[in-house]
Amino acid sequence: MKPKHVDFYFDYLSPYAYFAWRQIVPLCESAPVELSIHPVVFGKLLDHWGQLGPAEIPPKREFVYKYCYRYATLHGFAYNPPKYHPFNPLHALRLSLREVCGDNQRQVISAIFTAGWSHGKDIGEPGELSGIVDTLGLDGANLLEKTRTPAIKEILQKETQAAIERGVFGVPTMIVADQLFWGNDQFEHIALCLEDKDPLDKEKAAAMLARGRAIDRKAVAR
Amino acid sequence: MKPKHVDFYFDYLSPYAYFAWRQIVPLCESAPVELSIHPVVFGKLLDHWGQLGPAEIPPKREFVYKYCYRYATLHGFAYNPPKYHPFNPLHALRLSLREVCGDNQRQVISAIFTAGWSHGKDIGEPGELSGIVDTLGLDGANLLEKTRTPAIKEILQKETQAAIERGVFGVPTMIVADQLFWGNDQFEHIALCLEDKDPLDKEKAAAMLARGRAIDRKAVAR
Repeated sequence: MKPKHVDFYFDYLSPYAYFAWRQIVPLCESAPVELSIHPVVFGKLLDHWGQLGPAEIPPKREFVYKYCYRYATLHGFAYNPPKYHPFNPLHALRLSLREVCGDNQRQVISAIFTAGWSHGKDIGEPGELSGIVDTLGLDGANLLEKTRTPAIKEILQKETQAAIERGVFGVPTMIVADQLFWGNDQFEHIALCLEDKDPLDKEKAAAMLARGRAIDRKAVAR
Repeated sequence: MKPKHVDFYFDYLSPYAYFAWRQIVPLCESAPVELSIHPVVFGKLLDHWGQLGPAEIPPKREFVYKYCYRYATLHGFAYNPPKYHPFNPLHALRLSLREVCGDNQRQVISAIFTAGWSHGKDIGEPGELSGIVDTLGLDGANLLEKTRTPAIKEILQKETQAAIERGVFGVPTMIVADQLFWGNDQFEHIALCLEDKDPLDKEKAAAMLARGRAIDRKAVAR
């Protein structure tokens, strides 16, 4: 069977991205799947689509933390979110580019996610990140040095822009066979898609999406 | 066992609210649960929290429609969204207040949700709504007439305001034992909460929520 291609878009700011990462790695090891990993700047997605992040709406932030605590406990791992949140994710995202960490990409990403969201580390802080990478037997200071070049900064910007152009509006996003899946609760549908058993009728869905709008918010709000 | 209290907040604009409704009714029939049903104006919640709805972000709207199609197909019912969307939900919401439909509240809500999201009806339109209520053996025109009084309009406004004051930021929202659950994918956690088996450690969660912010979006976005 020809391997399917999966694009995975993430930012360390999202605990749901961590949870999706924990599922996508075994998925790609158990099935003929080619995984392309795309670090993207969540804040830029929000800016582009005019949206707020969960951490910007106080009761939503509270709900997300509690949901994550319950989810992780029921799935047998620790939920212990970053020391500061939101944090600046740019160092961690650049460190996670294939152009920086090469064939160690999956290990680096797993280590940063786990340190941030299971061990409460400050994964916005370069010194902390360097130490996390060191624990993998890599040279953290050297990798971090590589992230400081304009070329690497530009790659992250381009990844983010390319994501926006594909319609990525949040993280985690998985794109499989041109179908976009958003969130941590999509793996049942993704698995069906990978097995060529997607229940979607694309023609019917297109017809539904073409139905008109009767009203928009300014009118409802009055 | 003393019955648990569940508050359910919804707007017909949300297909996820329909999916949650399909789960909460059997849940409340199978367990000692007192259900309080709160129609609320989703647009007002969005206005209050400064958020966009899924229908206001084109790729998110597409994702939601496709997700819903897959979900409904896998759960054995039809997904056929309202003829127009977004639509004006006010007539349907007022019709669904206990003060209007009394003991028929659950049947009325089920009928409107099903007509809108499984049969593609225009549930923003009073004539259509009246016909939907008629099929239940009730007098649709009479109920609709009751929704036109200032007192009924005010009840819906008050429900919406009270929801905002409880931190409701989206629909569907379920509140069980002071814990807020948002979305269609929360029923595993809700069931545990109803059985007094909530895995949440409230003290730990409060400590996590009290951690600081290192950065906010304006700084990241630059």
